Amino acid sequence: MSFLCLQQDRFQEICRAVSLQRPLVHCLTNEVVQEITANVLLASGASPAMVVAPEEAGTFASVASAVYINVGTPHRERLEAMNLAISAANQHNTPWVLDPVAAGGIAWRDGIIHDFLKLHPTAVRGNASEILALAGMGSGGQGVDSTDDSRQAVNAAQDLAQRHQTIVAVTGEVDFVTDGTTTYAIEGGHVMATLVVGTGCSLSAMVAAFCSAWPNRLEATAAALSLAKRAQEKAFEVAKAPGSFHVAYIDALYTVTH
Amino acid sequence: MSFLCLQQDRFQEICRAVSLQRPLVHCLTNEVVQEITANVLLASGASPAMVVAPEEAGTFASVASAVYINVGTPHRERLEAMNLAISAANQHNTPWVLDPVAAGGIAWRDGIIHDFLKLHPTAVRGNASEILALAGMGSGGQGVDSTDDSRQAVNAAQDLAQRHQTIVAVTGEVDFVTDGTTTYAIEGGHVMATLVVGTGCSLSAMVAAFCSAWPNRLEATAAALSLAKRAQEKAFEVAKAPGSFHVAYIDALYTVTH
Amino acid sequence: MSFLCLQQDRFQEICRAVSLQRPLVHCLTNEVVQEITANVLLASGASPAMVVAPEEAGTFASVASAVYINVGTPHRERLEAMNLAISAANQHNTPWVLDPVAAGGIAWRDGIIHDFLKLHPTAVRGNASEILALAGMGSGGQGVDSTDDSRQAVNAAQDLAQRHQTIVAVTGEVDFVTDGTTTYAIEGGHVMATLVVGTGCSLSAMVAAFCSAWPNRLEATAAALSLAKRAQEKAFEVAKAPGSFHVAYIDALYTVTH
Repeated sequence: MSFLCLQQDRFQEICRAVSLQRPLVHCLTNEVVQEITANVLLASGASPAMVVAPEEAGTFASVASAVYINVGTPHRERLEAMNLAISAANQHNTPWVLDPVAAGGIAWRDGIIHDFLKLHPTAVRGNASEILALAGMGSGGQGVDSTDDSRQAVNAAQDLAQRHQTIVAVTGEVDFVTDGTTTYAIEGGHVMATLVVGTGCSLSAMVAAFCSAWPNRLEATAAALSLAKRAQEKAFEVAKAPGSFHVAYIDALYTVTH
Repeated sequence: MSFLCLQQDRFQEICRAVSLQRPLVHCLTNEVVQEITANVLLASGASPAMVVAPEEAGTFASVASAVYINVGTPHRERLEAMNLAISAANQHNTPWVLDPVAAGGIAWRDGIIHDFLKLHPTAVRGNASEILALAGMGSGGQGVDSTDDSRQAVNAAQDLAQRHQTIVAVTGEVDFVTDGTTTYAIEGGHVMATLVVGTGCSLSAMVAAFCSAWPNRLEATAAALSLAKRAQEKAFEVAKAPGSFHVAYIDALYTVTH
Repeated sequence: MSFLCLQQDRFQEICRAVSLQRPLVHCLTNEVVQEITANVLLASGASPAMVVAPEEAGTFASVASAVYINVGTPHRERLEAMNLAISAANQHNTPWVLDPVAAGGIAWRDGIIHDFLKLHPTAVRGNASEILALAGMGSGGQGVDSTDDSRQAVNAAQDLAQRHQTIVAVTGEVDFVTDGTTTYAIEGGHVMATLVVGTGCSLSAMVAAFCSAWPNRLEATAAALSLAKRAQEKAFEVAKAPGSFHVAYIDALYTVTH
């Protein structure tokens, strides 16, 4: 296989488009990572809004720039709100991104994820274990963490993208993003990011922001992944332990894009 | 219009009263900002408690020093708890503060906020778009962020304060706080605070803490706003990006008040 | 009374066992501290997973290394999930830890805590006011904060441990952990930790991780408490205010164990 590489000037152009448009990202994500997700979006030039009640999620999704759905802590009321938000996004041609947290682990959750997949997400972002599981090729991760290498999930990602006519991003030591035909590879980053909760979940929210601000959504997703990788590298230059790495990562998202 | 300015010695006196009394602030706030809200209260000398179940919210509000209501992520069970806490606060003459997050955006939420306004909050704190919307003069913000200047919302704040016999604080580049007759203006702060989620919400919680520790609640609110402004300035002296600014802001709340 | 002291080599051996096994800790904790709890577990060598829906909590607890139950913000659906997770843990001889947040304050919550106590937790971790209240000797704390000294709660901890055949840890200026017969005392730490929300709650999650990785659970609990104390000391060496102390504490948990 051969992979494309996102050029530096295109990357900068896309980041600028995000900063200029300041997309309003409607996040229906898990309970654990809402603060870091909001801060990651703010640092990278977007505007977060967590509007979670079923009474208002559909209305708000109708005016948002993008919708982000993360199934990390699904429960009845939240699932109701997610379905209303997705429906509104689809009616308004608003991009929406699915993060299939812990796919392949529990049948009930897998049912939810597969139902969401049928609703035509603009992009799906997961780790290798999650993407392998969605493509029916997996053995399952450990809880929310991947036990597989992202390189082993490229075929699964391409298969999934073709089958669901979506963009699939599989992140890990190397990130890959594909529409089933064209595949970008993004190297770099730092493994310390896996010791900060929410770096993956908030990256999916960035994908939503970028897909709303740039018409070529495969490039937009590649740019969001590139931004995270660069920010991780910059963070590790100044921070060698996870507490300070978390702070430096947010700082770097801002300094790279501003 | 002419505005009052809170004197430095009065400011210090009020901060000391908070530290000495260590008010217990019962917070019913949104899902996204609970951690930063607790940490902001702790750093500024108060004691946070998030008691959210309807089964205990009323009982707990009866013994709390202050109650803080934030409608950022309302849902059925939380609204039930909020009403019980407000009712207990009113019965015990306990100050309670309302943060009308995203007022003017969605009719369902506006209904909730207007119902709460009728229950006589001690103070209301919002950004310019929110205060303009509550006064019926607004055009709506972008999600949870203001698109208006706080200076344009002073009349709205005064009108709202008179109509509801409450204190209204409108925060932005300059903060204003009014009881409808007397209005304080607080300058300073730093715009970087708008890139850290929860700086506004947690400021409303500080207003609740300060209103419980100082009998003149207009002064108390002005002092809380002043503390946030000073801490933002101190934070920007050492931190030029939002991750480290967040950390430095918490540090500065502590060093200014201890 | 005389107390044991955990030897340095045993402490290091236990920390190594955690890092090698990377226990998967199923956390059903309160809304406020989920992010810091996940980050504390990751920094200290464990793997967190917040699986909270009743539909999947029992299934997930069956495969987790340990279960952590914290009643800080109980509500109907969460309590249902907690009961299913505890039941699965007990069926699989999986250690589970109870954090009785604010015990002694509100009758409804105390009923929940006493029901959980009857289900045979592996360990219980609380502050002095909470442990005194559970043993029926307390006068109640201020909200979630202790108003008692941990030294005054040693007898209560021993009594509680004997009565419920569990391990009881009472933390404060000095930490004590007992199985009712043998009691360890752990000195050190720093009071600045009380100004960072979730340092106590996340310590209980560490106790769960350590109990799953080391057969002698009294020693395991003493090791988790020791790790927190040492990390607090290291944190205060570089950070004199609560924002930066929080960051430095996470860093220190990592550097002490890696």
